[in-house]
Amino acid sequence: MNDLQQYTHQVALQAREASRLLVSVHGQQKNDWLKRSAAAIREQSEFLLAENAKDIDRAPEYGLTEAQIDRLRLTEARLDGIAVALEEIAMLPDPVGEVIESTIRPNGLRVSRVRAPLGVVFFIYESRPNVTADAAAICVKSGNAVILRGGKEALSSNLAFHSLLAAALEATGLPRHAVQLVETTDREAVGHFLGMADLIDVTIPRGGKSLIERVVREARMPVIKHFDGVCHVYIDKAADLEMATEILINGKCQRPGVCNATESFLVHRDVAPAFLALAGPQLAAQGVEVRGDATVCDLLTHARPATDEDYRTEYLALMVSAKVVDSLDAAIAHINEYGSHHTDVIVTNHLPAAEQFTREVDSAAVIVNASSRFNDGGEFGLGAEIGISTDKFHARGPCGLKELTTYKYVAVGSGQVR
Amino acid sequence: MNDLQQYTHQVALQAREASRLLVSVHGQQKNDWLKRSAAAIREQSEFLLAENAKDIDRAPEYGLTEAQIDRLRLTEARLDGIAVALEEIAMLPDPVGEVIESTIRPNGLRVSRVRAPLGVVFFIYESRPNVTADAAAICVKSGNAVILRGGKEALSSNLAFHSLLAAALEATGLPRHAVQLVETTDREAVGHFLGMADLIDVTIPRGGKSLIERVVREARMPVIKHFDGVCHVYIDKAADLEMATEILINGKCQRPGVCNATESFLVHRDVAPAFLALAGPQLAAQGVEVRGDATVCDLLTHARPATDEDYRTEYLALMVSAKVVDSLDAAIAHINEYGSHHTDVIVTNHLPAAEQFTREVDSAAVIVNASSRFNDGGEFGLGAEIGISTDKFHARGPCGLKELTTYKYVAVGSGQVR
Repeated sequence: MNDLQQYTHQVALQAREASRLLVSVHGQQKNDWLKRSAAAIREQSEFLLAENAKDIDRAPEYGLTEAQIDRLRLTEARLDGIAVALEEIAMLPDPVGEVIESTIRPNGLRVSRVRAPLGVVFFIYESRPNVTADAAAICVKSGNAVILRGGKEALSSNLAFHSLLAAALEATGLPRHAVQLVETTDREAVGHFLGMADLIDVTIPRGGKSLIERVVREARMPVIKHFDGVCHVYIDKAADLEMATEILINGKCQRPGVCNATESFLVHRDVAPAFLALAGPQLAAQGVEVRGDATVCDLLTHARPATDEDYRTEYLALMVSAKVVDSLDAAIAHINEYGSHHTDVIVTNHLPAAEQFTREVDSAAVIVNASSRFNDGGEFGLGAEIGISTDKFHARGPCGLKELTTYKYVAVGSGQVR
Repeated sequence: MNDLQQYTHQVALQAREASRLLVSVHGQQKNDWLKRSAAAIREQSEFLLAENAKDIDRAPEYGLTEAQIDRLRLTEARLDGIAVALEEIAMLPDPVGEVIESTIRPNGLRVSRVRAPLGVVFFIYESRPNVTADAAAICVKSGNAVILRGGKEALSSNLAFHSLLAAALEATGLPRHAVQLVETTDREAVGHFLGMADLIDVTIPRGGKSLIERVVREARMPVIKHFDGVCHVYIDKAADLEMATEILINGKCQRPGVCNATESFLVHRDVAPAFLALAGPQLAAQGVEVRGDATVCDLLTHARPATDEDYRTEYLALMVSAKVVDSLDAAIAHINEYGSHHTDVIVTNHLPAAEQFTREVDSAAVIVNASSRFNDGGEFGLGAEIGISTDKFHARGPCGLKELTTYKYVAVGSGQVR
């Protein structure tokens, strides 16, 4: 074993040991840690800002854009937001130990499915330093030990956050390896962790497509993926067109750079002229570039022709692809084929259309008569989230505390044998 | 693409198309298919037995043992058992569409988590032909299309079962590619399927360790694994020793060749002499070979010394490893280290011991005062099962209908925007 292998193995072993201890920790103790960490972030804001300034100074070296530097930057207000988020997580119910279901079998055996931590989470993320505190909080609250691997661009900030979180762990008597930060930025370290299926229970990558693809290729343990959001709005022939316009504009424009922003709209041929007459000027007023099929381009003078690739593209910008469809079936087929199974919306007042759309569209969230922007842990009532999964397995859609748990069967008898 | 690539890709595409159609099928139609299949198995028993005889004739060529040939053999009684199993699956509630939870958010948006099929299941199994009918039934009942890949030793039997199941699909108007059987025994075909993460949602291998390890290595989609069962009974110092003896003997002897059979027992030092005096003669009477540590060997004259490897071994035979421990903590540490996270039992009347054991032992099923043999879909009340997962992710323990589903968020609004 070389030094890096030894270091990563040691970190993973420590995480496994901490996870064994965490199963017996009471919720109150975890909440104390969260509140103490929040207080430390407020009290030591000068230290955090100074460490963050080092990252900001180095940012041009790494070729970060202005938008990326802005995401990296901490301020007093942002620090307070991070502290508030920890306090909110403290107030959520503890998922560990919840009895999901329980029955008494005919032989008197009581069989329960009980929520339990997954164990050790390996979390890989990019340059937003607030994620360090957020991810640690969600993982530990759900009873897991976490190995955090942040981007090199935020290393000083991440080390600073970690030092506060770790001090709070010790002060509240929690295992100090419950939260570990990988201190090397060597990319090979990630590869070593991804091979340790016996010590790490799940890997969660949050970042660009190439990172996620690498993780999927190399990971020997399960991965919760967070891929693209190519989200659609379908305007049915029975849609309220005013409502449809509002939903499209909101989905596209309220925050164009996020995964649940609307990237494409489909409109039923019967209502296409009326809808485009209404929505077209509003899209133009918001500065949205429309890329449409021939019919859309005929009806909307400022639209440009869309390529097949446009319909698969997550623009994350003020651009939208558009298509006229002949039927609900055609809309569903298009979404299942071109979409990314993230969030898709139908606007309709026709009940059978809503039923068919929600049943047949194979996406993490299927929304009737509301903006795609609602697919979000906070909006769906999960509290904090660690990401929005585009997987079907284990966790789909927003991943909150429960999605970081598994269950075990607990059977209690009085001497039953078969 | 060569012929095999083309064939496997075609099969997977057909499965995906069938899975899209299955989401709109009513439960009644799936149940009709199950009942019609059961009837066909009874009516065409001669055909099935004749095809099975071909496999039995070829079995010596494949070097099958007598026990393996026995598992391969169909009889009228076994066929009736398979038909009854299908009828029982027809009577289970349909998991698809179940609203797992639902809330109305403060803005009036109704957010529900709704159970939905996974999509396409690739199921790989070995020589028991009854699995063909069972797996097809469980997959289709849960709304999934399935690609079945049985062992070459059972090919004629599997083709015969598949022809009946497929005819029943057509007769009930279900998509005929909902159940496909891979008709080639080329091992490369498996590799091709394992690479098709875009068309197959989950792979379930059921068979020996080398099969499972290959699947884990090559699969690009999630896998539900079914690994060893190194199951323990821990006899606490507060155990009822008569009960402990009965639970140990039952777990070890009632059916030694299955994954939830007991393979090892740990006994607290304070009660070791009394327990071994009671259990020792009964183990001997059942012909069970005991491999113990020094203390066990001192107390039990017929025990032989255990190696470290013994404590990690799934004997699947009338053998058991044994160890004296100084504390409940030591027992838990041993089980988490040497066990396979399958099924572990504590015998105790001391409530805090039972609580600590069920919380800290990291296994799919943790049982208090009952035999390890109860970790089973039927015994736990799930109805049919497709295997017992030793994974923590998505499905843990017995995998029934619900474990072959995912969920989607369905949000219904009235024009909400953010």
